Parts: sequence; structure tokens; C-alpha cells
Amino acid sequence: DETITISEYILTRLEQMGVESIFGVPGDFNMPFLDYVEDHPKIKWIGCCNELNASHAADGYSRVKEHGIGVIVTTFGVGELIAMNGVAGAFSEMVPVLHIVGVPSTLQQKQKPILHHTLGDGRFDAYTKAAAQTTIAQAAIVDKVTAGPEIDRVLAQAITTARPVYLTLPMDLVSTKISAKRLKVELPRSPPPNDSEVEAFVLDEIVKLVEAADQDVVILTDACVIRHHVRQEVNDLIHKTHFPVYSSPMGKTSVNENYERYGGVYVGLNSHPKIKEKVENAKLILSIGSLKSDFNTGMFTYSVPASRTVELHSGHTLIRHAQFPGIGMKKLLPKLTERLHKFEEDAKQLPLPQYKALIPDEKDDIISQAYFWPRMGQFFKPKDVIVAETGTSSFGILDVELPEDSIFVAQILFGSIGWSVGTTLGAAVAARERHLGRTILFVGDGSLQVTAQELSTMTAKGVHPILFVLNNNGYVIERHLHGMDRDYNNIVDWNYTSLLTTFGDKDGSRSRSYTVHNKKELNDLLEDETFAKADKIQLVEVMMDRYDAPRALKASAQLSEAMAKRIAEQDPEA
Amino acid sequence: DETITISEYILTRLEQMGVESIFGVPGDFNMPFLDYVEDHPKIKWIGCCNELNASHAADGYSRVKEHGIGVIVTTFGVGELIAMNGVAGAFSEMVPVLHIVGVPSTLQQKQKPILHHTLGDGRFDAYTKAAAQTTIAQAAIVDKVTAGPEIDRVLAQAITTARPVYLTLPMDLVSTKISAKRLKVELPRSPPPNDSEVEAFVLDEIVKLVEAADQDVVILTDACVIRHHVRQEVNDLIHKTHFPVYSSPMGKTSVNENYERYGGVYVGLNSHPKIKEKVENAKLILSIGSLKSDFNTGMFTYSVPASRTVELHSGHTLIRHAQFPGIGMKKLLPKLTERLHKFEEDAKQLPLPQYKALIPDEKDDIISQAYFWPRMGQFFKPKDVIVAETGTSSFGILDVELPEDSIFVAQILFGSIGWSVGTTLGAAVAARERHLGRTILFVGDGSLQVTAQELSTMTAKGVHPILFVLNNNGYVIERHLHGMDRDYNNIVDWNYTSLLTTFGDKDGSRSRSYTVHNKKELNDLLEDETFAKADKIQLVEVMMDRYDAPRALKASAQLSEAMAKRIAEQDPEA
Ligand SMILES: Cc1ncc(C[n+]2csc(CCOP(=O)(O)OP(=O)(O)O)c2C)c(N)n1
Ligand SMILES: Cc1ncc(C[n+]2csc(CCOP(=O)(O)OP(=O)(O)O)c2C)c(N)n1
Ligand SMILES: [Mg+2]
Ligand SMILES: [Mg+2]
Repeated sequence: DETITISEYILTRLEQMGVESIFGVPGDFNMPFLDYVEDHPKIKWIGCCNELNASHAADGYSRVKEHGIGVIVTTFGVGELIAMNGVAGAFSEMVPVLHIVGVPSTLQQKQKPILHHTLGDGRFDAYTKAAAQTTIAQAAIVDKVTAGPEIDRVLAQAITTARPVYLTLPMDLVSTKISAKRLKVELPRSPPPNDSEVEAFVLDEIVKLVEAADQDVVILTDACVIRHHVRQEVNDLIHKTHFPVYSSPMGKTSVNENYERYGGVYVGLNSHPKIKEKVENAKLILSIGSLKSDFNTGMFTYSVPASRTVELHSGHTLIRHAQFPGIGMKKLLPKLTERLHKFEEDAKQLPLPQYKALIPDEKDDIISQAYFWPRMGQFFKPKDVIVAETGTSSFGILDVELPEDSIFVAQILFGSIGWSVGTTLGAAVAARERHLGRTILFVGDGSLQVTAQELSTMTAKGVHPILFVLNNNGYVIERHLHGMDRDYNNIVDWNYTSLLTTFGDKDGSRSRSYTVHNKKELNDLLEDETFAKADKIQLVEVMMDRYDAPRALKASAQLSEAMAKRIAEQDPEA
Repeated sequence: DETITISEYILTRLEQMGVESIFGVPGDFNMPFLDYVEDHPKIKWIGCCNELNASHAADGYSRVKEHGIGVIVTTFGVGELIAMNGVAGAFSEMVPVLHIVGVPSTLQQKQKPILHHTLGDGRFDAYTKAAAQTTIAQAAIVDKVTAGPEIDRVLAQAITTARPVYLTLPMDLVSTKISAKRLKVELPRSPPPNDSEVEAFVLDEIVKLVEAADQDVVILTDACVIRHHVRQEVNDLIHKTHFPVYSSPMGKTSVNENYERYGGVYVGLNSHPKIKEKVENAKLILSIGSLKSDFNTGMFTYSVPASRTVELHSGHTLIRHAQFPGIGMKKLLPKLTERLHKFEEDAKQLPLPQYKALIPDEKDDIISQAYFWPRMGQFFKPKDVIVAETGTSSFGILDVELPEDSIFVAQILFGSIGWSVGTTLGAAVAARERHLGRTILFVGDGSLQVTAQELSTMTAKGVHPILFVLNNNGYVIERHLHGMDRDYNNIVDWNYTSLLTTFGDKDGSRSRSYTVHNKKELNDLLEDETFAKADKIQLVEVMMDRYDAPRALKASAQLSEAMAKRIAEQDPEA
């Protein structure tokens, strides 16, 4: 029987899943495993400045790689806890990530000495217990027999649920040999077929509703279309039916936004009025992969009653008030497309709102939020990877139409600031592996300060993202939520344009940094071909007003306030 | 009955405990509470770049403040998880810290909508469950009646156990009024008295052992002397008995190291041979506040059998093999001092090893580790706060005698790199509040990169630490443990001397940065009075060899290897 070390077993599985880069930070408990990573012919080690950034990089890598998994390696206790925010974010946002933690030897785990990185009280399982809160499955490698099956179990879970998983690898088992036999069968990457009888019933019911709606149907595409990899199936559906399609914020780029039947972003009360009207007045809403979080629904102000809605999900289907557990969209969608194809001619007649965010005609020369975002829309190209941080950025970009085959990456549900910086590293690495276009980040000054050092790794690893840093003197999104002029919403004014030279590009030959103070400087830069080519890492400091916010953010802040009021009124305690 | 808002209740308690600064990062769930912090007449808000650094700052603040508590405020989910490493470190190292988390309203916690910062699956208790692994007590503020008692309960626990605690404050209760009556009684800060009968018995037993040992006694002082605040009691003991006293690494500065009866650092096989001989051959070892972790004991190579040992702890006493639960050292020590005073004349005769780390007479001009640390010893002054990061720094400083009334701060048990940077912020703030001397940090290049941005907050808040950055091209401590020339132990070469101007001192007027390449440059700088005065924040990049390590680190790496071998041999699986 062929054997293989446990480390190589893990790496072979990852290679099968398309992993070419692994992120993390070394430590004495994981270095023996890192030897295997470094020696692997196809997989590269990308050492990060810290584990928080590494966890975000694994998240970004997973999102842009698509159909794969992001991997982070940390060391016992100290490293894994720093990574926890990023792993939790991957859970919340449904991104498959494998978190491998190098841990003390199996014997030490039994004897429980007061080792460095422990809590000092002999609880060697404390970190795993904490990790259980933020991962969908955990496995501890403890012996030869269970190692292979356990590794496979958590990897399969990560892929099928689109969530992070946790794997501890003790120092003494890193080079232990196990059977390689299981590796001959790759792990399944798509869900099992639906029960055919129930599925047929579901299809009939949906077709009946479409007919009853006089074909007045809109399609709403959301986060899980991306997370559960049905982008292709959804695109087939919309092209073969011509029903108008709208997207949620988290669903952005799940369908081509230049497509003639794409109507824009629906986000409840926070939508453009014309979009809102069209979506909410449709006789039937076919919602695909929805994720109804606060910011993704305009603070829960959706106005599409269940009685007019069909919802397709990764593991179940809802038809009006009826639930169909186990009927998943991956297998259902192609059949639905076939059945709905016949409505194409009528569906083509359904009107779309004529709404596009235009560049406003402003008299002054200030780079306003209202100006900046549509202007950026003109700068994007097909296949660009566009990352937006929580803050004015993630709201500002909502109204911008993104180009064909672009990938939009944002953390609209979890919303942990600083995330976008590590994510940009991972996204840029994945984009390079996939031969995609440029990676373009929009990040606020406050968020950048959380994780700024990871610009260093980008420079060192030779990826060339364009980093737009919105310098508006603090936590502007927070100002609009609470404490407009409070001191806690101010931050230190950094010299952003010296970040790249400070963090490793000592002679300035491998990067370019710019500050744009006004519309003219911004336009000149965006029109500069050398800049647009993005053949080096580039940072652009964009000077903005400390109170200015995009339309969608202001609207959202008002809705938040209204929601808080509603709550206060309901609450007997207050 | 007088009433007070819950926020003010918390702040009043903290003020009673001597808190003058609170660290953290705002978020929409904690900003209403931050209004109270910002408006408080005595307590200052110190906004950090991220929650990891803020958690380390609270740790450093707590350590240097002494007899108090460090406080960090974060926001639900995203912020609190980033802070988790720092809170776990405070647990491991026994540092009282209060972690206040701003959380959704009580109603939202019941209704469980998919709010931003949640895991998206309605588990609103997930973060508290994770926090339970790394804090000694948790409390959720949920109503008027229990709020006061719950706040008091966790604060009392933090102080008596010297561990971190976790408190969630929901948005809707921030301004809720509760009775202020409890505040009239301050929380007890010292442990209750020992059972007098058992205590008397314990005292008799110890005195008998000292007599039987022909007064050949050595005192070993360790971490918990500092953590459980018996420094004064231990100093009384050694001055009134004149028994020779040695310290563990974590016990450094628990007693005055210039004191004539101080013999140096005992750390098992890793000790200087003369110290090892004296300690291990004593007829009786009186160990106070010991914490027997790997690095604190030379990888568990203590050679002081229980039969010759008395151990005093915060909550129990060990006399040879007998345990006395409940007999704590705080109350025991003064009585013991009284009883042992009579041995003073004989104890004075006990010889001390004549070992001091001297500056070696090296021919070359390289700044070696062997040269650097004793040279730094001459630079220190009484009342300095000396912070050493995990790595060559925390080992290099062990052999250096620190001055009277200095405070040594290191994370020798938990050993999370990057910790020292946030800690230095907190330490410097506390040192300023206490009118102590300079705050001096030693940090490796790799560790600095983990948390570098917090230099920004130091500059902005006007504290003036001296930051020695050891530039040795990577993770040198790791090289000595595994993978000497592995790529994963290399890091990006930053422009360290431009960090302070990049991070906020834009015109260079508020900071100074230096690089010292050789012994002469180092000496010139250390002898420069303007530098030594530390009236601005200063960063010194110290150029060192990429393989050089201090004696204690090399010895420790060898012991680690030996330990790993022992384990491999014991292990049936390997
Ligand atoms: C880790 C974390 N800490 C705190 C917050 C709370 N928070 C949300 S947005 C924000 C401010 C972002 O400011 P910036 O990046 O400058 O964006 P902008 O000014 O463009 O809104 C903060 C502090 C968070 N979401 N995540
Ligand atoms: C958060 C965390 N991640 C990883 C480690 C593993 N680790 C221990 S020491 C060290 C390297 C420290 O390097 P540096 O600060 O440059 O110190 P020096 O070179 O002086 O030894 C690393 C990566 C750790 N202890 N903590
Ligand atoms: Mg900002
Ligand atoms: Mg180093």
C-alpha cells in the first residue's frame, strides 16, 4: 500500500482543490509542517505580517479563486486567536477557508505541561472550543488511522457549506506516514442530486406561479449565487428567459451588470426609487441565493411579501409559504431554465428602470462622494477584481455598474474594518493565478490603519493592486451613525503616500504613490495609461471631506436610526 | 434613592480602581457608551488603530499601573474577536483586564435578526461562548436590577484572580438609570484573611524547616509576586532576613536587582552555572509566587526537589509535600517575615554568586547580542519601565541587571509576538500617570511588523517611549528552533526609521529616528543626553546579524530540542 506523510496528504488534497498559495505566520508548533509547504512543487507559502491579515488573505483568495478554498496556517494559541476574526468573517460571509493550526505534540496534549502559548492552566482544548464557535467543523489529527478521513471530512464540509473549518496538526505527527489510497478519489465539490419527485413538483409549482403572474416576474440575485457557485446557472436562466434581473448589494457581479436586462441594485427602502418600484410591484419575485442581513436589505425594509416570492437556496426551496427542504438550487436551476425558456418572448417586453449613476455636474473642484464613485465606474475594465471596505466605500460603490466578468468583493454582512487589506493580498494572488485583470481596492483611512502593514507582503510578492485610500480624516461612516463630531471618530493623519516605501519598497522602484486633491488631479491620474496598466503596486490617496458620505450610506444611517427608535419603543426596559 | 446611568456606574467603579485611561476602537454598538467615556472628567479615551493593539495596551497599562485594572472597549463580534489574543494573553500571564463589548440591544438579542457583525445564523451568544474560554468571568448586562451586582462581580473577580473578565453592554441599556448605592462601598482589593489556626501551623512548620536547614535558605521570587502585588511584602522579607534572593525570568524586578543580597536569575539548566549551583544546593528553597512554565524554568529543568521546598502562592501554600489550601501569601508573608527576622545575622553570612553580565571585549565593531544587552544595562535608570518582546529580546535581557524601582514587562508565558508594541503604548500611558521614568521597548523586526501601526497612537498621545528595533532580518528566535535558513523565517526589510513620520509625525518635529550600525554609533547615541532624556518618541534601528542570538536563547533552543527528543522517544505513535 502506498503511504504518504500526513503533511503531504493535506497538501495533495489542497492541490486537488486548486490551492496554489497558502497564507500564514510561522511558529515553533507549525514550522515542521511549513517545511512541507515550502518544499511543495506547486504550492507557495505566503508569509504575512500577522495572522489577522493572513486570515483575511485566505478569505480574499478563496473568494476570487472560486470553487476552491483559502488556507491559513497559524501557531497554537497566539496565532490562531489573532486569526479568529478573519475566520469568523469567513463563516458569516460563507467563504470556505481551512484553518490549520500547528499544536503541541499528542503527548504534551495529554500531559498538559505549562507550555508557552497556553493559558497557563492546563486547558489545552480551550482554543479548539473557541474555534468551534466560528467554524462549521473541527478536526484534531491524533493518530494514523483517523487522520485521512478527518482531513477529508472537514474539507468536504468546508466546500459543501461554504464555511471555514479548523484542523489541528500536532508537531509529532507532521511526518507520520498514512495510506495514500483515499487520495485517488477527489472530494466531491458539488451537492448531491435533489429528490426527483419533490424536484418535479417544485418545478411545476414555480411554472404555475410564473404563468399566474402573467410573466410579470423579476429575478433577484444575491450573495449565495456567488458563494454556492451558481453564477453560471443563473446567467443561463436570465439569458434564456430574459426576465429582468436585479441584484442585492452582496449579489453584485453575480450577473453581468452591463447585460441589457440588468436593472440595478435592490436594497429595500435604500434602493433608487425606480428600482424599488419595479421590484416591489412585480407579480412574482424569483429570489436566488438571498441573504437577508441588515445592510443587504436596507435595514430589513424589503417589501416583497412571501405570497409573491419564490426563494431558491443552496439546500432548500421556498414557494410562497411552502418549504421544500433538500431541494437545492444548483441542480434545480438548469431544469428551471429549461421550463421557463418558453416565456422568453413575453419576458423581453417587461420594462427596466432607466437608472444609471451618472457623474454629477458639480461646480466646485472637490472630490465629492457623489462624483467619485460614478467616475470610478468609468475606470473599471472587464475582469477587474474590485474590493470595497466597510465604510463610505462599500456604500459608495453600490450605485456603480461594474463591468462584465469583474468580481466584486466586500464584507457587507460581517463588516470588520481592515479586512479589505489582507483580502486584497489574497485576491491579487488569486487573480494572478487565474489570469484575471487588475485588483482594485477602495479603503477608508480608518480601516487601512487596522491592517496597513500587509501592503508590505503585496510589494514583496510582486502583486500590483491599485489601492485607493479615501482620506476623509476619520471614521466617516461612524460619524453618520453616531457622534458626528466626537473625538473618538477622529484618527491620526498618516503620511499615506510613504507607506509603500516604508513597508519595503525602500528605493521606490517597485511602487508608485499619489495624492489627488481635486477632480482634475483625479481625472488626470485615471486617464494616465501607465497608471491604468497597473504594472506596479500603486497607492492613491484621495482627499475627501470629513462629513461627505454617499447617498446609500446617508439613507442607511437614517434607516438605522429609525430601526433603533422602533426598538426603543418596543422595549419595556427603556 | 440616588440613581446613575449604567455607563456612569461602570466608569465610577473604574475610577475608584484608579483607571485614568481606557483603550479601544469605536463601533456602532459601543459609541453610545463612548460618549460617557469621552465626557468623563477623569478618564481619557485612547482610540487605537485596531483592537489587537488596544488589548495589548490594556494589558501593559494594567501591569504598569499596578493594583489596578486595564480596560478595553470593543464592538460586537468584529472588534471583540480581534481583541481576543490580547485578552487570552492577559489570562495566561495573570493580568487583570476588563473587556467591555458594546452589543446589540436586548430586544435584538432576543429576536436575532441577521445584523451586521453577526455570524449570519442567529447565534448571538457565539462570541460570549468563545470569550468564556479566555476570561475568568463573564457578565451580560440585561436589566436594571442585576446590572450593578454583575458589574461588581466581574470586577472583583478580575482583581482577586488577576485575570481578564468580559462584560457585554447592550446599546439600549447604556443610559438606563440604576441605583448608585452600591458605589459607596469600594470593591475589596486584597484577599480575605487566612484561617488563623492553619496559618499559625504553617508558620511553625516553615520556621522549623528553616532551622533544620541550618539557615541555608534561598528565596526564589517569581511572576505572582508581581501579579498578586506582594512585592512590598517580599522586599520586607528579604531586607529583614538577609537570605539570598534569586528571581525567575518572569519574576524580574519583583525585587530590587541592585540589592546586595540579589543573586541573579535562576532558570534551571539555563541559569548561569554559579547561580544554578547556589540555588540547587541550598538546603531549603523558599519559593514565592512561582509560575513553572517552560521558558520560565529552562524547559522544566528545575532541580529543586519538593522535599527541600516551601512554596507560597496567592491562594495556597505548599510545605514539602503538604498542601494548605486557602493559605495565601499576601497575609502570610508579613507574619513570616516577623518569625524569620531572628535568622538575619546567620543569613547574612550565606554567600552569593559573583556573577554579573559584563560587556565583552570584542575586537570587531558589530553590535552582537553578547555586547548589546550588558551595554543596555548601563543605559537604564531607576524607575524606567522596560518592555521586552518575545524573541532575542526577551532572552537577551534576562542576564541584565535592571535598576532599582524599574518595572520589567514581558510576556514570557504566552509569548505572542507583536504584543510589546501595544503594551508599550499602555505602559507609557500608565508610567506617565504614575510619574515613573522612561518607557523603553526592545522589539524584533518580525514582532514589530505584527502591530507596527500603534506607534501612531503613541505619537498622537504624546508619550515618549524609546523603541529599540532589532533589525536582524527575520525571525531569529525561530531560526534557532527550526529551519535556520528556511524562507519562512525571512521577512520584508522595512524602512524602520521612516515609521514614525509615516504614522503621523508628518513634519518630523515630534519624533526622532536613528539607525545604529556598529558599537561606536550605539555608544554615541546612548551617551547623547538629548537622546537619554527621552523628551520625544524615539525609534532606534539596531543592525544585528541574522544568526546571532543571546546565550540564554541558544541554551533554551538546545533544551527545547532535547525536550522534543524526549517526547518523540516516549511517544508510541511516532
Ligand atoms: C474590527 C472593527 N472595528 C470597529 C468597527 C466599527 N467601524 C465600522 S466602520 C468604522 C470606520 C471606518 O472608517 P474608514 O475606514 O475611514 O471609512 P470611511 O471614513 O470612508 O467611512 C468603524 C470604526 C468595525 N466594523 N470593525
Ligand atoms: C502571534 C504570534 N505569531 C507567531 C509566533 C511565533 N513566533 C515566535 S517568535 C517569532 C519571531 C520573532 O521574530 P523577531 O521579532 O524578529 O525577533 P528576533 O529576530 O529578535 O528573535 C515568531 C514568528 C508567535 N509567538 N506569536
Ligand atoms: Mg475615513
Ligand atoms: Mg528579528
